[in-house]
Amino acid sequence: MKGKLLVLHGPNLNRLGKREPEVYGKQTLAEINAEIEKFLQQEQYQMQNYQSNIEGELIEQIHNAEGEYDGIVFNPGAFTHYSIALRDAISSVTVPVIEVHLSNIYNREEFRHHSVLSAVCVGQITGFGAHSYILGCIGLIQYLQQKCKL
Amino acid sequence: MKGKLLVLHGPNLNRLGKREPEVYGKQTLAEINAEIEKFLQQEQYQMQNYQSNIEGELIEQIHNAEGEYDGIVFNPGAFTHYSIALRDAISSVTVPVIEVHLSNIYNREEFRHHSVLSAVCVGQITGFGAHSYILGCIGLIQYLQQKCKL
Amino acid sequence: MKGKLLVLHGPNLNRLGKREPEVYGKQTLAEINAEIEKFLQQEQYQMQNYQSNIEGELIEQIHNAEGEYDGIVFNPGAFTHYSIALRDAISSVTVPVIEVHLSNIYNREEFRHHSVLSAVCVGQITGFGAHSYILGCIGLIQYLQQKCKL
Amino acid sequence: MKGKLLVLHGPNLNRLGKREPEVYGKQTLAEINAEIEKFLQQEQYQMQNYQSNIEGELIEQIHNAEGEYDGIVFNPGAFTHYSIALRDAISSVTVPVIEVHLSNIYNREEFRHHSVLSAVCVGQITGFGAHSYILGCIGLIQYLQQKCKL
Amino acid sequence: MKGKLLVLHGPNLNRLGKREPEVYGKQTLAEINAEIEKFLQQEQYQMQNYQSNIEGELIEQIHNAEGEYDGIVFNPGAFTHYSIALRDAISSVTVPVIEVHLSNIYNREEFRHHSVLSAVCVGQITGFGAHSYILGCIGLIQYLQQKCKL
Amino acid sequence: MKGKLLVLHGPNLNRLGKREPEVYGKQTLAEINAEIEKFLQQEQYQMQNYQSNIEGELIEQIHNAEGEYDGIVFNPGAFTHYSIALRDAISSVTVPVIEVHLSNIYNREEFRHHSVLSAVCVGQITGFGAHSYILGCIGLIQYLQQKCKL
Amino acid sequence: MKGKLLVLHGPNLNRLGKREPEVYGKQTLAEINAEIEKFLQQEQYQMQNYQSNIEGELIEQIHNAEGEYDGIVFNPGAFTHYSIALRDAISSVTVPVIEVHLSNIYNREEFRHHSVLSAVCVGQITGFGAHSYILGCIGLIQYLQQKCKL
Amino acid sequence: MKGKLLVLHGPNLNRLGKREPEVYGKQTLAEINAEIEKFLQQEQYQMQNYQSNIEGELIEQIHNAEGEYDGIVFNPGAFTHYSIALRDAISSVTVPVIEVHLSNIYNREEFRHHSVLSAVCVGQITGFGAHSYILGCIGLIQYLQQKCKL
Amino acid sequence: MKGKLLVLHGPNLNRLGKREPEVYGKQTLAEINAEIEKFLQQEQYQMQNYQSNIEGELIEQIHNAEGEYDGIVFNPGAFTHYSIALRDAISSVTVPVIEVHLSNIYNREEFRHHSVLSAVCVGQITGFGAHSYILGCIGLIQYLQQKCKL
Amino acid sequence: MKGKLLVLHGPNLNRLGKREPEVYGKQTLAEINAEIEKFLQQEQYQMQNYQSNIEGELIEQIHNAEGEYDGIVFNPGAFTHYSIALRDAISSVTVPVIEVHLSNIYNREEFRHHSVLSAVCVGQITGFGAHSYILGCIGLIQYLQQKCKL
Amino acid sequence: MKGKLLVLHGPNLNRLGKREPEVYGKQTLAEINAEIEKFLQQEQYQMQNYQSNIEGELIEQIHNAEGEYDGIVFNPGAFTHYSIALRDAISSVTVPVIEVHLSNIYNREEFRHHSVLSAVCVGQITGFGAHSYILGCIGLIQYLQQKCKL
Amino acid sequence: MKGKLLVLHGPNLNRLGKREPEVYGKQTLAEINAEIEKFLQQEQYQMQNYQSNIEGELIEQIHNAEGEYDGIVFNPGAFTHYSIALRDAISSVTVPVIEVHLSNIYNREEFRHHSVLSAVCVGQITGFGAHSYILGCIGLIQYLQQKCKL
Repeated sequence: MKGKLLVLHGPNLNRLGKREPEVYGKQTLAEINAEIEKFLQQEQYQMQNYQSNIEGELIEQIHNAEGEYDGIVFNPGAFTHYSIALRDAISSVTVPVIEVHLSNIYNREEFRHHSVLSAVCVGQITGFGAHSYILGCIGLIQYLQQKCKL
Repeated sequence: MKGKLLVLHGPNLNRLGKREPEVYGKQTLAEINAEIEKFLQQEQYQMQNYQSNIEGELIEQIHNAEGEYDGIVFNPGAFTHYSIALRDAISSVTVPVIEVHLSNIYNREEFRHHSVLSAVCVGQITGFGAHSYILGCIGLIQYLQQKCKL
Repeated sequence: MKGKLLVLHGPNLNRLGKREPEVYGKQTLAEINAEIEKFLQQEQYQMQNYQSNIEGELIEQIHNAEGEYDGIVFNPGAFTHYSIALRDAISSVTVPVIEVHLSNIYNREEFRHHSVLSAVCVGQITGFGAHSYILGCIGLIQYLQQKCKL
Repeated sequence: MKGKLLVLHGPNLNRLGKREPEVYGKQTLAEINAEIEKFLQQEQYQMQNYQSNIEGELIEQIHNAEGEYDGIVFNPGAFTHYSIALRDAISSVTVPVIEVHLSNIYNREEFRHHSVLSAVCVGQITGFGAHSYILGCIGLIQYLQQKCKL
Repeated sequence: MKGKLLVLHGPNLNRLGKREPEVYGKQTLAEINAEIEKFLQQEQYQMQNYQSNIEGELIEQIHNAEGEYDGIVFNPGAFTHYSIALRDAISSVTVPVIEVHLSNIYNREEFRHHSVLSAVCVGQITGFGAHSYILGCIGLIQYLQQKCKL
Repeated sequence: MKGKLLVLHGPNLNRLGKREPEVYGKQTLAEINAEIEKFLQQEQYQMQNYQSNIEGELIEQIHNAEGEYDGIVFNPGAFTHYSIALRDAISSVTVPVIEVHLSNIYNREEFRHHSVLSAVCVGQITGFGAHSYILGCIGLIQYLQQKCKL
Repeated sequence: MKGKLLVLHGPNLNRLGKREPEVYGKQTLAEINAEIEKFLQQEQYQMQNYQSNIEGELIEQIHNAEGEYDGIVFNPGAFTHYSIALRDAISSVTVPVIEVHLSNIYNREEFRHHSVLSAVCVGQITGFGAHSYILGCIGLIQYLQQKCKL
Repeated sequence: MKGKLLVLHGPNLNRLGKREPEVYGKQTLAEINAEIEKFLQQEQYQMQNYQSNIEGELIEQIHNAEGEYDGIVFNPGAFTHYSIALRDAISSVTVPVIEVHLSNIYNREEFRHHSVLSAVCVGQITGFGAHSYILGCIGLIQYLQQKCKL
Repeated sequence: MKGKLLVLHGPNLNRLGKREPEVYGKQTLAEINAEIEKFLQQEQYQMQNYQSNIEGELIEQIHNAEGEYDGIVFNPGAFTHYSIALRDAISSVTVPVIEVHLSNIYNREEFRHHSVLSAVCVGQITGFGAHSYILGCIGLIQYLQQKCKL
Repeated sequence: MKGKLLVLHGPNLNRLGKREPEVYGKQTLAEINAEIEKFLQQEQYQMQNYQSNIEGELIEQIHNAEGEYDGIVFNPGAFTHYSIALRDAISSVTVPVIEVHLSNIYNREEFRHHSVLSAVCVGQITGFGAHSYILGCIGLIQYLQQKCKL
Repeated sequence: MKGKLLVLHGPNLNRLGKREPEVYGKQTLAEINAEIEKFLQQEQYQMQNYQSNIEGELIEQIHNAEGEYDGIVFNPGAFTHYSIALRDAISSVTVPVIEVHLSNIYNREEFRHHSVLSAVCVGQITGFGAHSYILGCIGLIQYLQQKCKL
Repeated sequence: MKGKLLVLHGPNLNRLGKREPEVYGKQTLAEINAEIEKFLQQEQYQMQNYQSNIEGELIEQIHNAEGEYDGIVFNPGAFTHYSIALRDAISSVTVPVIEVHLSNIYNREEFRHHSVLSAVCVGQITGFGAHSYILGCIGLIQYLQQKCKL
């Protein structure tokens, strides 16, 4: 194994597949997690996933990732737009975080155009449906390998 | 019984009766719940109530209402003004939600004039004290009956 | 009779039934007035209705309500958003006013999200179609009865 | 007689004495008009007064003042804050207009701090209760006399 | 005759010719109406004109145009900038409305740069003096003929 | 011939007919140019047309129009909203410019509601599809003839 | 003598007569002071005047007025728009203050439309040239007499 | 013992010492708590501390403080900037709350300059590192003693 | 070959490697193009690249891509923030466009936080250095394959 | 003696005790200075105090503190909100400055919520009445001692 | 001698050399004044310099320059951003004023990007360190000579 | 020769002398270039000038200046206010750039008060007509000589 990644899902993502499929697609969260895990196994990375609707539990997952995981792929859901506490949690650890979104948040309501988290993440991927997670994993792995070379 | 309604109370509403009675009235939450239940029994609706100070627990109550309840009367308290996660929770279910407020939020501080939830609720009732809940129930029942006719 | 209520309709509401039925419903104003009157008779309240497209005429109706009516259920239509003169009219009388809207003004155009009137009304009811008027009457009656008890 | 002045009263001023006396004082509009007339008679000016709650009627009074009156003392009430049509009416005549307010509009609600009319009036007087009208008359007379000298 | 058009003039336009001729030109409203009528007779359209300084009367003219006129050429004057009630009146009828302005509202005061009406009109013509009305008629006729072809 | 007009088309207008026909219509730019030319020949005006996607080339066309053309009918496309350089180009010549738009820019995205050019143009015509160009030509010819008379 | 008034002049008012006479008139400050004094003597009020370009000196004049003067007529010049320290000085005394301006500050630059002082003054008079001071004195005297009667 | 104080720590403060030491210092939360406790023992106050990353748990701690503690020293962390629910919790109790911050929030990112809580706290102390807590305790004790005297 | 992609580079990207390497990395544009081409060959896609500092030339490349390419990976550089003309170009073709950025535009200057293009692109990838292009290609290929399946 | 501190008081603070006691307390400035001095003597610090209503004199006191004092406790009064010159004065010296306020500036008028000075001070203390100065001294002494240790 | 210039220095500039040398350079104000004087002697201009931290004293220097000096080179320091009184002082004299800044105020804090003075100065020079004064003198001399020729 | 400077002119500057001479003066661009060249020859600097109306061509001139010129004097015309691409071009080279403007952009339209370029230039000179270029050259030469000394 080359490393260990945490895939973190924010509020309402447990409703995937059931919730507004025209916006978020027809796959359930379990199916998406399985697909990510399959991909990461091919890449020889171990994967853990976690979903919560409670901001404080996501904060604690990020805290606990320090020393446990090599990186985090994080879909913060609606917390994207106001949870400065999650921003501080990301700043408080050295584990790199990639922000991903299923939908293109920039062609939805005005209030979804701003992320309070992206400034403290490595990068942001938005608009590719469930495939955004896979792109996030590829980007994260590439990022980790470049850091190793330095 | 004609149906089953969930009455949902947001943060600090457990303090009702004890908290700023000149703004929120002298009744406790238990008394208000009893009054709503009595009214709904007359209307032949079953009622369940739930209060939480934790945003994520309210989100989960809304998720679980799907297939369980015919509608929700929701006083989101201070979450009204910033919880986009609750907005997404309401969007993620097909159960109709009525937003109610005890006080007239439009003659209080500027930051209480805006609700991030009302756009995804059926309607909003504000300013009638504890009676706002009863009006919410009447409105919801009427809404459910009209839908049945269609 | 327990009292006497004024149901006041603002601009363009004479077009109800003919105007954008997908937004405002298929009932005409006459039909809605009849329905409200029937409801109020059951509650033993006398009812008068009045519609005008002229701001100043609505102002005068409010002035004249002083000492004539026990309360007003008011759908101010587009005046909601800019008529500070109507706001001052409401402030200038002691008759309680309930603001009602057919549509959910909070999921329409940005400029419909703000009411210059709600701060001086008892409460606001929005989004229940023609039923918003009935809810307004119930709320108003309840409000009047509570005041009596004090 | 030295000239002829129009004293124009905007919406809700017919409620003076009855409306919020702690803000607007205890005098009725009739009493205020009588006081202004008495003052102007001493100054040898003829006076006409007019009150309307209808913006368009005030516009027409201003139009008709052209060639009829030497000046206007105008309390536009709530129209102060949004009636661009009244502003255009004032611009469309050569009769000088003085804007007066009973209360100090600058220590009331934020939306009362801005006048869309003052830029096209000669001057503005605010905060002296019913005496604001008298000050407006004195200022107007002085303005008319200075113009005569040139 | 090919059809029947309503030419509607908003507040202060009765002052044309007398009011600020450097901005609005030297023609009176009667002369402009005569010129429009002459043009429309050549085009075989019947024409009716109406001016009011009262918002509510303009609203009613628009309501009554339904089924009476094929289209409206409307110069809303200062109501352009704040009368949401007029906007709703236009939305409440199926008669097409063309918005016209004598002056170029975009090189005047900041508050004249925004129209609350244009979003619900077919199109807007501004800056051609009295000729704006003629252009509005040509545009409207063309619009009506295209619709017929479909 | 009575004169010579330049019809100027901004960015993406070469895509007309192919691009979003529900917004911009089915005619190609060549067809529209042909229609304008036919109209102008009837009016005894010579016509030249020019399209570019490059801001600087449109600027140079406007510069070169000085002394060459009697007027310009200009559809600036997306440059409408930010090209202050085009605004300066229009100010730098004495040739009158009419701004035209195919669609009603005021019922599209917020950022399309503001034109940085209209303040330095004679007038603006918007919302009549390809016919906006013809209206622009009529308005321009009228403007030129009035100037001649003075 | 009926009382004692302080006439206070803010920055640059020592330049009156010399400075932009088209805006501020041709009289010098000495001439204006003489005129005010003459008027106040007729009204049996003693008058003291003071001009300073230093904010802190004006603050101290206001402090010292407590117990010394019955009221202040104050032209704060440019300090009107930003000196919160002068606002606090006015709040810190019980002496009533009238704010006066020579020019109509509402038809000048945008930044002159807002006064940080008017909310703590009795009233504001603007646009009557040097005569604004006289109107301020009349208003102040009237205000003092009304208070006496109570 | 003179009384009993609650020291409340908001989200991410469990990471102190580990998180961005250049901003927040090198002490762990346990060390800081020990230091505060030592200080309070000298002052003869009993102390309880509590940290949570979950907004709702902090709300409940504040509710439960009523009747249990004499005052609260609260570092709300990132909740400072958006948790209106915490603001309401503070308003809902009579226990005085002091807001403290380790870093000077006013020379950090723009979004950290605004606190939604400070208006309902007794006072705010910011920028003294871990010593901010001690200053908060001193201020609170002084506040409690003054209240006793009244 | 499975398809043909266009990789489009906006202004100043020809300076890559030479320009601010701490922000944009040390690779030249030629090296990056070579790397992308190598990757796409493995994936059996043909690739063409194009760089321009002229907005209009980029617009034309997008126009010409219609029918020529299966998709575009586009780094719009500074045009991201103001080129509505590029936005219209993207809307005017059916070819899908992926927006990529080398740096994390959300932790740079405020004016770089907003993209006028992202609402009309499939998705956005930001912050992975030159690797953003590769992620963009993977996302685009995935997007094309999903569309094929439908 | 361990050091020498300057206690600096801004505009209107000479009115303390006399000015709005419900906001600022009943103590005079002399009494407050005596209390601070007594406290600092116990702590073995020498103290000098200075009050001015003139911004420039406060600037000079800060300049002169360089090399003279170990630190400054500064209540800038209304200058807090606009004196960028005082901000530059603080930046121009190496002496540490603590900003203190008697009242809780965050529950007063909107314009008092922002300080232009706090970003260049060590920390800010607000809301503890005259005791804010004492807390400021304690915080400053602690700050000075920590620096010594480094 | 060809003329006489005033070099005016605003608040905190007496700290030059001592204050933040990385921003403002290492020269003292005396050294800079000497350098300017030497340059002006070569150009045959007499020079006077003046520094004050008190806004009102700078105002008076500008007043007194009328008839005394041919022009002013003014570094207003922090007053640049808020002293409307200084703006009025410059407007009140006919002496031309050149605004100069040592640092490039446009790449510093947001609040330093706006000057309330530049609109009433001849021109502005910023970013050349102490050399900005010399450039200001050259620009002023050139301006004076051009005026002479006319 | 001591060095080689590029004088760069943005859009519409080729119209100088012909365009709005009351704003921009009567000299043509050729005359201005000649004057600058004459001045620079005296100073022993070689000079090249370039004008373009195309943003991308100016970008390329800046790119090509690297290693070719010692500095650039740049009048960006209208691009000043929106061309972030030009800003990036300036950032991408090490050649120092001086921003110059003929007119005082701060007393013209609001939208001309902001430059997106000045933060990345050495300094800015505005308001001295064609002489602004000469001042820019003097400032640039001084800047280059100071750098040499270090």
